Amino acid sequence: MEFRIEKDTMGEVKVPAQVYWGAQTQRSIENFKIAQDINKMPKEIIKAFAYLKKAAALTNFDAGVLPQEKAELIGQVCDEILEDKLNDEFPLVVWQTGSGTQSNMNVNEVIAYRGHVIKGGSLTDKEKFLHPNDDVNKSQSSNDTFPTAMHIAAYNILQEVTIPGIKKLRDTLAAKSKAYMHVVKIGRTHFMDATPLTVGQELSGYVSQLDHGLRAIENALPHLSELALGGTAVGTGINTPKNYAVNVAAHIAKLTGRPFVTAENKFEALAAHDAIVEAHGALKTVAVSLMKIANDIRMLSSGPRSGIGELFIPDNEPGSSIMPGKVNPTQCEALTMIAAQVMGNDVAIGIGGATGHFELNVFKPVMIYNFLHSARLIGDGCVSFNDKCATGIEPIEANIKKHVDNSLMLVTALNTKIGYYKAAEIAQKAHKEGTTLKEMAVKLGYLTPEEFDAWVIPADMVGELNG
Amino acid sequence: MEFRIEKDTMGEVKVPAQVYWGAQTQRSIENFKIAQDINKMPKEIIKAFAYLKKAAALTNFDAGVLPQEKAELIGQVCDEILEDKLNDEFPLVVWQTGSGTQSNMNVNEVIAYRGHVIKGGSLTDKEKFLHPNDDVNKSQSSNDTFPTAMHIAAYNILQEVTIPGIKKLRDTLAAKSKAYMHVVKIGRTHFMDATPLTVGQELSGYVSQLDHGLRAIENALPHLSELALGGTAVGTGINTPKNYAVNVAAHIAKLTGRPFVTAENKFEALAAHDAIVEAHGALKTVAVSLMKIANDIRMLSSGPRSGIGELFIPDNEPGSSIMPGKVNPTQCEALTMIAAQVMGNDVAIGIGGATGHFELNVFKPVMIYNFLHSARLIGDGCVSFNDKCATGIEPIEANIKKHVDNSLMLVTALNTKIGYYKAAEIAQKAHKEGTTLKEMAVKLGYLTPEEFDAWVIPADMVGELNG
Amino acid sequence: MEFRIEKDTMGEVKVPAQVYWGAQTQRSIENFKIAQDINKMPKEIIKAFAYLKKAAALTNFDAGVLPQEKAELIGQVCDEILEDKLNDEFPLVVWQTGSGTQSNMNVNEVIAYRGHVIKGGSLTDKEKFLHPNDDVNKSQSSNDTFPTAMHIAAYNILQEVTIPGIKKLRDTLAAKSKAYMHVVKIGRTHFMDATPLTVGQELSGYVSQLDHGLRAIENALPHLSELALGGTAVGTGINTPKNYAVNVAAHIAKLTGRPFVTAENKFEALAAHDAIVEAHGALKTVAVSLMKIANDIRMLSSGPRSGIGELFIPDNEPGSSIMPGKVNPTQCEALTMIAAQVMGNDVAIGIGGATGHFELNVFKPVMIYNFLHSARLIGDGCVSFNDKCATGIEPIEANIKKHVDNSLMLVTALNTKIGYYKAAEIAQKAHKEGTTLKEMAVKLGYLTPEEFDAWVIPADMVGELNG
Amino acid sequence: MEFRIEKDTMGEVKVPAQVYWGAQTQRSIENFKIAQDINKMPKEIIKAFAYLKKAAALTNFDAGVLPQEKAELIGQVCDEILEDKLNDEFPLVVWQTGSGTQSNMNVNEVIAYRGHVIKGGSLTDKEKFLHPNDDVNKSQSSNDTFPTAMHIAAYNILQEVTIPGIKKLRDTLAAKSKAYMHVVKIGRTHFMDATPLTVGQELSGYVSQLDHGLRAIENALPHLSELALGGTAVGTGINTPKNYAVNVAAHIAKLTGRPFVTAENKFEALAAHDAIVEAHGALKTVAVSLMKIANDIRMLSSGPRSGIGELFIPDNEPGSSIMPGKVNPTQCEALTMIAAQVMGNDVAIGIGGATGHFELNVFKPVMIYNFLHSARLIGDGCVSFNDKCATGIEPIEANIKKHVDNSLMLVTALNTKIGYYKAAEIAQKAHKEGTTLKEMAVKLGYLTPEEFDAWVIPADMVGELNG
Repeated sequence: MEFRIEKDTMGEVKVPAQVYWGAQTQRSIENFKIAQDINKMPKEIIKAFAYLKKAAALTNFDAGVLPQEKAELIGQVCDEILEDKLNDEFPLVVWQTGSGTQSNMNVNEVIAYRGHVIKGGSLTDKEKFLHPNDDVNKSQSSNDTFPTAMHIAAYNILQEVTIPGIKKLRDTLAAKSKAYMHVVKIGRTHFMDATPLTVGQELSGYVSQLDHGLRAIENALPHLSELALGGTAVGTGINTPKNYAVNVAAHIAKLTGRPFVTAENKFEALAAHDAIVEAHGALKTVAVSLMKIANDIRMLSSGPRSGIGELFIPDNEPGSSIMPGKVNPTQCEALTMIAAQVMGNDVAIGIGGATGHFELNVFKPVMIYNFLHSARLIGDGCVSFNDKCATGIEPIEANIKKHVDNSLMLVTALNTKIGYYKAAEIAQKAHKEGTTLKEMAVKLGYLTPEEFDAWVIPADMVGELNG
Repeated sequence: MEFRIEKDTMGEVKVPAQVYWGAQTQRSIENFKIAQDINKMPKEIIKAFAYLKKAAALTNFDAGVLPQEKAELIGQVCDEILEDKLNDEFPLVVWQTGSGTQSNMNVNEVIAYRGHVIKGGSLTDKEKFLHPNDDVNKSQSSNDTFPTAMHIAAYNILQEVTIPGIKKLRDTLAAKSKAYMHVVKIGRTHFMDATPLTVGQELSGYVSQLDHGLRAIENALPHLSELALGGTAVGTGINTPKNYAVNVAAHIAKLTGRPFVTAENKFEALAAHDAIVEAHGALKTVAVSLMKIANDIRMLSSGPRSGIGELFIPDNEPGSSIMPGKVNPTQCEALTMIAAQVMGNDVAIGIGGATGHFELNVFKPVMIYNFLHSARLIGDGCVSFNDKCATGIEPIEANIKKHVDNSLMLVTALNTKIGYYKAAEIAQKAHKEGTTLKEMAVKLGYLTPEEFDAWVIPADMVGELNG
Repeated sequence: MEFRIEKDTMGEVKVPAQVYWGAQTQRSIENFKIAQDINKMPKEIIKAFAYLKKAAALTNFDAGVLPQEKAELIGQVCDEILEDKLNDEFPLVVWQTGSGTQSNMNVNEVIAYRGHVIKGGSLTDKEKFLHPNDDVNKSQSSNDTFPTAMHIAAYNILQEVTIPGIKKLRDTLAAKSKAYMHVVKIGRTHFMDATPLTVGQELSGYVSQLDHGLRAIENALPHLSELALGGTAVGTGINTPKNYAVNVAAHIAKLTGRPFVTAENKFEALAAHDAIVEAHGALKTVAVSLMKIANDIRMLSSGPRSGIGELFIPDNEPGSSIMPGKVNPTQCEALTMIAAQVMGNDVAIGIGGATGHFELNVFKPVMIYNFLHSARLIGDGCVSFNDKCATGIEPIEANIKKHVDNSLMLVTALNTKIGYYKAAEIAQKAHKEGTTLKEMAVKLGYLTPEEFDAWVIPADMVGELNG
Repeated sequence: MEFRIEKDTMGEVKVPAQVYWGAQTQRSIENFKIAQDINKMPKEIIKAFAYLKKAAALTNFDAGVLPQEKAELIGQVCDEILEDKLNDEFPLVVWQTGSGTQSNMNVNEVIAYRGHVIKGGSLTDKEKFLHPNDDVNKSQSSNDTFPTAMHIAAYNILQEVTIPGIKKLRDTLAAKSKAYMHVVKIGRTHFMDATPLTVGQELSGYVSQLDHGLRAIENALPHLSELALGGTAVGTGINTPKNYAVNVAAHIAKLTGRPFVTAENKFEALAAHDAIVEAHGALKTVAVSLMKIANDIRMLSSGPRSGIGELFIPDNEPGSSIMPGKVNPTQCEALTMIAAQVMGNDVAIGIGGATGHFELNVFKPVMIYNFLHSARLIGDGCVSFNDKCATGIEPIEANIKKHVDNSLMLVTALNTKIGYYKAAEIAQKAHKEGTTLKEMAVKLGYLTPEEFDAWVIPADMVGELNG
């Protein structure tokens, strides 16, 4: 490979000849040979940096501390980053300095040197038109840019991937709930037969879970909308022009179309990432919901002959390499694995969040890596589960009817007629003798057959139906 | 010990002669010999049951399904429970059936039998005036009462213990922040010397963390305000009179003074406890904040001679059984241990929440046990930390001044004057030669001594001060 | 209440007149009003302290630094503690200083003052015969006594409660496995019908899990057998007589009957508690196993009419306050709640273990609190589950037979005869047309009825049977 | 893109013309569009499959159920996989079916079709020489191959990456410990000054942690050495030739050079992955150790002027984009972020392990994904930390001496001379008056200056030195 020489404040570094990055990026590649093939800094962070670098350049220009030509050139490279034209220029991994300084410098270097080339310069020029620190990073520090990128990336992925994914699944389940609102089925508590409800009612519980989960995510957005930018090194805003923090947040809001504002307290915004912890708590809540929903659906569709078999779900692929003709609830499995992952990610984020010290939390990369992972998995997972499973759910009415008719817990309807104790006696004896509730009720002399038929009607035991 | 005989639908059980509980409570004592000395069902749950049993009796009376005398008697015993008069009557442990049925029956039995005694009956009467199931539990199921008790207990402890505790600490830190807003100190990022800020600014970050944490808790309250009561066995409301769910929630709201409402979707309210998961996510966020704050304070007060030594905290006790005269940041230690506990509790709650099936989540006791534990620890812990540590925090100005004066990172002020690279050269060479920035800056010929004195002023590097 | 005055190096403190504890215990009560009603320092730790204080006194006497009378008096009070005679004298909570110094001093004070009274003195004597620091704590520091107590307590509870509990359950399951080794049943993978196995084989998997879990716990014992005592303040052994560390460990080994040895490296033993983290990792592994086992059993016993219904488990109590005659797998529920708790405790312990600094980990109380909690829950939980559930497990042969006969996955036996693809075709078409494998196999012309009967025999599909 | 048509039991699928995979792989790509750019099935699993498929072919050939030519062809493609020649042929993600069936079929298809091409066939041939199910997957099921691949991959990465990485760091720390065994420094407990120890002693604690961690990992290897292969669909070994399980394990052991054996109980080996849970518990223990070690080192090297500053660590890169000349403990930060990740991964693995049901755990991919992630991060992270940080550690003797000389806790040496209480008085008054211990001791009349000098010698307070 051919190389060129780049320099930073520590001296010269050999860099591959054609890349736009410089000395500090190269140092990080060499200093952090940790899972380099699998744990690149997420692309969502790189794009968030592109937004903020452009916004910073615009704000610096507005404030008169950066010439127009430089500001425009910076903006132009940022646009290229956003258009995926420079994807190979960001080789650094998550496992670097905990402030993300090296990724900030990676972006600074790529913008500076690519900008220099756009302007007609060469990568081997000793002096470049744009300086990574003095121009691209002007009025900034890694300490405020990286957390700003974290919030931009987190907010965006929630809005673009996570929330729409959950909503898509929620809407499908709501439609199914409405469609099957009158299909009476046996309820199950403690895995044991209980009083009846309808398929639609059961599904409505899932819808309610996702509705509450969406609300929990939305509750977390305001904290994520607060940006650290303008705090610079330790939160005091050293080396920023007047009103910089407010103005740069406004630029970011405009560029992204999101309601970002400058954080009221910059010291918190650098030293703690409770906003990430809090928002991921909402994602974990959704993961918990999804685990419940997917578990239910796979158990309700179990069988086909020796399980519960009340729900049909689509057959998407052969299920077994040895058992011919087997089909499995594979979408449920992917979704529950995702839930487990999100619950683990939550712990990593919590530990990272708790272990910041003094003016800077230095678990930034691991926190946002896990956050983006969870947000992506939930979003993609819900869409996959929706498209390949939920949309195809149908009740298997024969099994449903058989189960509800057999159930001993219909006896509950008699509590208000003959009291809990006599009702219990009927159920227990019917169970022991393998007979029906009706036969036993009459045999024990507690009811006439006519009374039984009038009082024990599954469809009357499901309350009011909505939908 | 003397015994009497009680009965339930499974037969006779020997019960200690003097206790108010009955057969089902006794069965649970015998069936669940698990950590009986340390893990009783939390008293907050028992009191929440007292509210809801009274409310149910009132609602049943209103609906004409329970005679006035019975309703009043039930209410009277509930009041005794709330007044701590029957504390020894609730012997069951957390590790019982996952629906909490046995604790529901414990409450039902105690109310029925104590009520019977109040009315003049004897515990050995074969028939009692109040029946645990048919009267006390009327229009209810464990499946809707226990989750209702969970929400009442969770809401109450947050309002009575957790939120006031956090606020107390928050207010002290805010006052300290204001008091020391002008004490300039060295900032530290990556544990390394950085640019200056003030003691007040540093403390303001903690205040902001707690403010956001309080907001996160408050965001979780609406979901907790939704009550399952009225869903009965599986969410359909079987065996409840008309409008029962809405009316009983109104009674509970009135009795507790909290804005409880009936849950819009009862199927979710029985089968999932995402509200607990969500709200504990907020508690975990606060735990993460407290870990950060307490860690900072103990490190800032470290020494007294070989540490950082910038903050004085009160000496509350001898710190060592072997090192005479040692004092330690013990309140910080208790608070960080609490944070670790809450972060662990969060995982237990998440797993419990994720593992509900069909119409009923059967991890109810473990979920609320951990929730109440965390809520209590945070509330008590903040008050203890506040009273015995935070209120006594004072800056140690001599050390603070020494540290800020020595710092090489004051060089950052020169970035905008001579550029990042030359500034770096000054700092690096001053470090290597063990000299001051000023001497090195002048020696390198980048500044005059006058320029240095005019540009490098710590107090000018801390931005605008609020407070 | 009446009081007396006690003193420590910080001055005078009012102490309840009749208690044996002194100034430092009292200070801790007043300084740490955190969950005082529910989180006392575990009794296992107090007893471990009794062992080590007696051993230290003996070793000090052997070394000639403590007179015989004092050593004997200390030993006498330690015996009283071990005999539960002084249980009310240890009022401190977990949430105190992270070194456990206050509990160490609580023990020192109680031993000193109770010893003084045994010798005929009065609690109000200004000078006491035994001094908490200079006599009872001689050659010790909280920093080495508390971790020593942690290891003694952990080792003991594992041997006395946890391991026997697991073994009891393991042996019952092994006996059941043997008893039902020839009962052929349908296998289930992905919750879907699969090829057959026997009830005994299925249960043997649980036995194997517990066997491996027991081995994992035993693997952790050697690290727990290492004692910190002799390291004193920071691991160097300052203020200990020659050979003290080795000798005191030998005394502890003799008193407890456990193979304790002095830790090879005292710096680790004070500054880190990886032995606790490691051993709890084994407990967590067992919790994971128990969750799996208990889940399986409750699902296999689900029904009675609309579930899987292949296993009978004992009815221990009425299962529902509203559904008469309902019985539930309550022991499974307690055990799975325990598993969730242990998995949460594991995180609290990990965070505590990771957050030690320099010469001392100050998360000692929270770590051992969670460890003892888990060890106790698993031990008690296994016994309860064993006695009230596992011993009563019986196959429900009618349902088992019906399920295995219906299964389409018996077709797997044909892979080696007609290939996977044709076998799949048979199963898929039989499923679609609701017919049997045999009918479809013949209809498709792939087999004769005789071939089918010869090749598709469930009992031949379960391999060799052990047991 | 050009396509060809492939078929499985569900019908025809369009597959990119040039790839070696077939219908089932393609279905999985289309059915699981979840994080496809970032979460490919780990390459370690693919290679483990190559070992086991080759071993299965050899065993099948030995047993006379697979012709030699087919067996050799299968082995040849497996070798190509192990030589990284077919890396692009495994496009599936972690988030697929929880049994890993689709990755098993991906491997089966690639081996079959690549083998067909090697033999001279064309990808568009309707019939291929090797059949994915009937030849490559012969005597296997996904249910036993995937867990076998999990154990092979886990065992290999521990031996090749994790253990050597930890050992490398351990050896460097041991050498440093020896080199600085006589450098006396102040100890710190509770972050507060304590009695002295040496730099070498402090480092020896870290070595001991890693030694115990290595032992914990090694304790977990026997369980990992047990292979599921031969259990096929549900553990019974249906469709395997005689002695297959034992023989195939022997082949795998020979091919890998690892002591693999057939699992004693195949039902456990398919239905639970406690071996992964247990082994990851050891990795988590190491993560906890690394968090402690890296935290200590960054705090001991803090400053350079306003921190502790007792250890020099190498400057690897400019530390700040805004603060010129700043250097940071970046390797410590990467390592502590890794520790947080591993602690999170542990929870995901535990949840996956706990949530298996009946004859098959279907959280296999998420469990092994997290395991391999942790194993890799710890291995790579230790090497990076070793090479770029630990090897360069040096004591900064001037600061060390200053701290030890100032310390008030040297007073501890006087306990055995004048008692704890008088010693405490000296320390407290010296602290209050800002003077030295010696001056105060003499002033209070407890010692002569000569006694002080004879008794209070830091180098005499560190015990025996090893190394």
